[in-house]
Amino acid sequence: MTPNDPRKAQKSLAALLAPDILDLLESEPSTVAAETEDLHPADLADVAESLPHSQIPLFLSALPAPRAAAVLEYFSEELRTELLEAMSPEQAAALVDAMTPDDRADTLEELDEAHAGEIVDALPSETRRNTQQLRAYEPDSAGGLMTTEVVSVPDSYTVEEALRRVREIARSGRREAMNAVYAIDVDGTLKGVMSLRELLAAPEGARVTDVAWPEVRHALVTADREEVARLIAEYDLVAIPIVDDRHRVLGVVTVDDVIDVIQEEQTEDVQKLGGMEALDQPYMQMSVGAMIQKRAGWLAVLIVLQMFTASAMERFDAELMQLPILMLFIPLVMSGGGNSGSQATSLITRAMALKEVHLGDWWRVAIRELPTGLVLGVILGAIAAARVFLSQHAFDQGWDLFGYTLGYNFERDNGPSWQLVAGNVFASLTAIVMFGSMAGSMLPFVLRRLGFDPASASAPFVATLVDVTGLIIYFSVALLILGKFMG
Amino acid sequence: MTPNDPRKAQKSLAALLAPDILDLLESEPSTVAAETEDLHPADLADVAESLPHSQIPLFLSALPAPRAAAVLEYFSEELRTELLEAMSPEQAAALVDAMTPDDRADTLEELDEAHAGEIVDALPSETRRNTQQLRAYEPDSAGGLMTTEVVSVPDSYTVEEALRRVREIARSGRREAMNAVYAIDVDGTLKGVMSLRELLAAPEGARVTDVAWPEVRHALVTADREEVARLIAEYDLVAIPIVDDRHRVLGVVTVDDVIDVIQEEQTEDVQKLGGMEALDQPYMQMSVGAMIQKRAGWLAVLIVLQMFTASAMERFDAELMQLPILMLFIPLVMSGGGNSGSQATSLITRAMALKEVHLGDWWRVAIRELPTGLVLGVILGAIAAARVFLSQHAFDQGWDLFGYTLGYNFERDNGPSWQLVAGNVFASLTAIVMFGSMAGSMLPFVLRRLGFDPASASAPFVATLVDVTGLIIYFSVALLILGKFMG
Repeated sequence: MTPNDPRKAQKSLAALLAPDILDLLESEPSTVAAETEDLHPADLADVAESLPHSQIPLFLSALPAPRAAAVLEYFSEELRTELLEAMSPEQAAALVDAMTPDDRADTLEELDEAHAGEIVDALPSETRRNTQQLRAYEPDSAGGLMTTEVVSVPDSYTVEEALRRVREIARSGRREAMNAVYAIDVDGTLKGVMSLRELLAAPEGARVTDVAWPEVRHALVTADREEVARLIAEYDLVAIPIVDDRHRVLGVVTVDDVIDVIQEEQTEDVQKLGGMEALDQPYMQMSVGAMIQKRAGWLAVLIVLQMFTASAMERFDAELMQLPILMLFIPLVMSGGGNSGSQATSLITRAMALKEVHLGDWWRVAIRELPTGLVLGVILGAIAAARVFLSQHAFDQGWDLFGYTLGYNFERDNGPSWQLVAGNVFASLTAIVMFGSMAGSMLPFVLRRLGFDPASASAPFVATLVDVTGLIIYFSVALLILGKFMG
Repeated sequence: MTPNDPRKAQKSLAALLAPDILDLLESEPSTVAAETEDLHPADLADVAESLPHSQIPLFLSALPAPRAAAVLEYFSEELRTELLEAMSPEQAAALVDAMTPDDRADTLEELDEAHAGEIVDALPSETRRNTQQLRAYEPDSAGGLMTTEVVSVPDSYTVEEALRRVREIARSGRREAMNAVYAIDVDGTLKGVMSLRELLAAPEGARVTDVAWPEVRHALVTADREEVARLIAEYDLVAIPIVDDRHRVLGVVTVDDVIDVIQEEQTEDVQKLGGMEALDQPYMQMSVGAMIQKRAGWLAVLIVLQMFTASAMERFDAELMQLPILMLFIPLVMSGGGNSGSQATSLITRAMALKEVHLGDWWRVAIRELPTGLVLGVILGAIAAARVFLSQHAFDQGWDLFGYTLGYNFERDNGPSWQLVAGNVFASLTAIVMFGSMAGSMLPFVLRRLGFDPASASAPFVATLVDVTGLIIYFSVALLILGKFMG
């Protein structure tokens, strides 16, 4: 095993183990559990996924129920659903019963309503009640994310009593998150928090109230899961208690679930920024038809918006006919504006997602983007003007490359000089890049102010907005600088 | 305090407390520590940041050193640097000495070389040696991320001996990450891992070797920090041991540092996707000049690439002069390709970052994108063709809106019929959107294959590539369909 690339090592581990496990399943299924007991459930899930799918239920049934449930939690959603739907409700219920409460609720959420209902009916009554409660919360809320197995001790305990209680819970074999121990009063109200470490470090004879921190970061059960993620990240927590409106502890959200939330939210943001609806599924697991649906909507909206460019061109077609060289730089000028707008939007959307920039900061951002856009515009304008000079110079000198004529003559009969053409490109690019930076940076604020998700300000959306406006800016500048050549 | 919005509550807490703290600093500085002892260091940092900057050193000196160090860790990089550079090396060293080893190394990394050197020289010798070791690792490696304070016990211990040892460490007041306890042999080689919970749950008389898991997820000290983050996320760990090439434990990376890594890497990816260099700093903390540098490079490269559109137009200018209506749809057709390309790139780049899609999957992606691009192209082409029909129809009927003439006449003397114009737009958009989806989805694979970061395939980069190619496709389709009208 090369410690450098554990992933590759794990993959080959799965490939290596799979044939052995298949043999064992045929000859001595009772030894499978012992043979694999040192593996992390994530690795065991890799091994299981590399077995023929028909053998996976047999493999799972050869493991103790809590172990099989843990493996199931690491399967892909697709495979988990396929397996559970192939089992009888009683078989599925036995597996699901052994899962942690939060994963159980999430797993049932993935199945179709009817099948999930049958499995819930086959669960033992206590698990069933707990599952129904958890499933009643919005999947995107703190309640939808939490597990109900909390380690709590009465705040009247001594530290030694608390440690004894924690040890009992740990030995009970239930799979509570034990990262933090909560002190509660007789009504179940949250009174304090301590880590196992703090409990262990407490001097002999100390009481829970001496050790526990009374100011506990917590989240309301109805809070958005992004808010829960933010609190855990900001305060470097390993777990956060979830309370009802009377401050009673209902459950706990652990940091590993929050990492998943952060990655999912980030995926959604990138996809929205790319100009589509969030897929909500891994790319490869999605059907082509479903993906087209997620992607076509925004593209259709954008092309309709983009039609205003055709309208603008139609309005200016008399000028264009008289001065066709105007045409040459339309794509160049438009894309300069679109690119600077995409930059600004990506930057501000991300800063908003990280809470580095708030709604009230819009004018601070505007003050920064104005000079930034100006300088960027001058740089791009200068490059484009240099290009005009070089083309004209190459034409005047008659340069060629392997017989391919380089250069272009901008100076047609009675038309503007190349200097005027270059000046026109410079001025319009400067104006359009400034406009692009401003529009791109302000749009996320406008969207948030209107109550939309700022991440909907996709790069293609900004580019399209700036294209249309850019074209109008371009023609206006051209009328100003080259107007007299347009008859 | 509304539990619904703890952030707002904290902010107003800071605003509320700041005046009281200023009073206390003047009248009774010795009481500041006791008055604030229940606050989380992150909140105390908020309070400190809302004080006048000249008062912050006084405030920090009123706190016990470990507490002041913890507060310093939650300051913004800017403020932390400002404060440390204003202090004498001895004062700064006293604070820095009380930080956790990983934060100490990171903090010194932020200062300029000379100042950091002076502070290191003023550190107690043991801390100095440890700090110099940590700073020798690449900041982006596991070594640059880890802390050296590991809780380990000899693998020859009984569980009761191990618990006693852990309790000693916990009571020593050092700030080790105690999420996991590692079993090591006499050479310091990693032999197993157990959680505090597993130690507590062990039956009386058990030995460490009975409890510890021998297969420990670990990372080499030279591993990339993204790899460390991936392991922690995939195996739901709270900490991962970092080893040298002889498998000896050098340190540990905890999940809270990994969340920061995940967010930083995501910010970099979004910024690259937006077509700029990663900023490495919060938007608001960056100077306008530095930001222009990060943004101008890619914009300049893109505008140079985009110039090939002008070259393509120059080549086709004879055709354009003969058939100026071709012009009208250039922006529309180009942006359709650019937008579909941006979508595909965002999707594949993100799927690669999440390891959902690997290099070898390129053909699977191609097989999906081909029909997707075709259908999307047909949809967009049909919308654009409908637009041509509507414009012509409005013109033929002489529709207007408040005196503003609607519609446009595509049918000039001896020119093509509107049906041919519409057919041309439909065919070229279909081809270009297909091309955009393919190019956008394949580019990340090409970049990775060439050893570049696939996230460099920014939306603006793809849009520019597709613009240039799209223009050539557009003219080629036009020559095919409308060639006979071009003389």
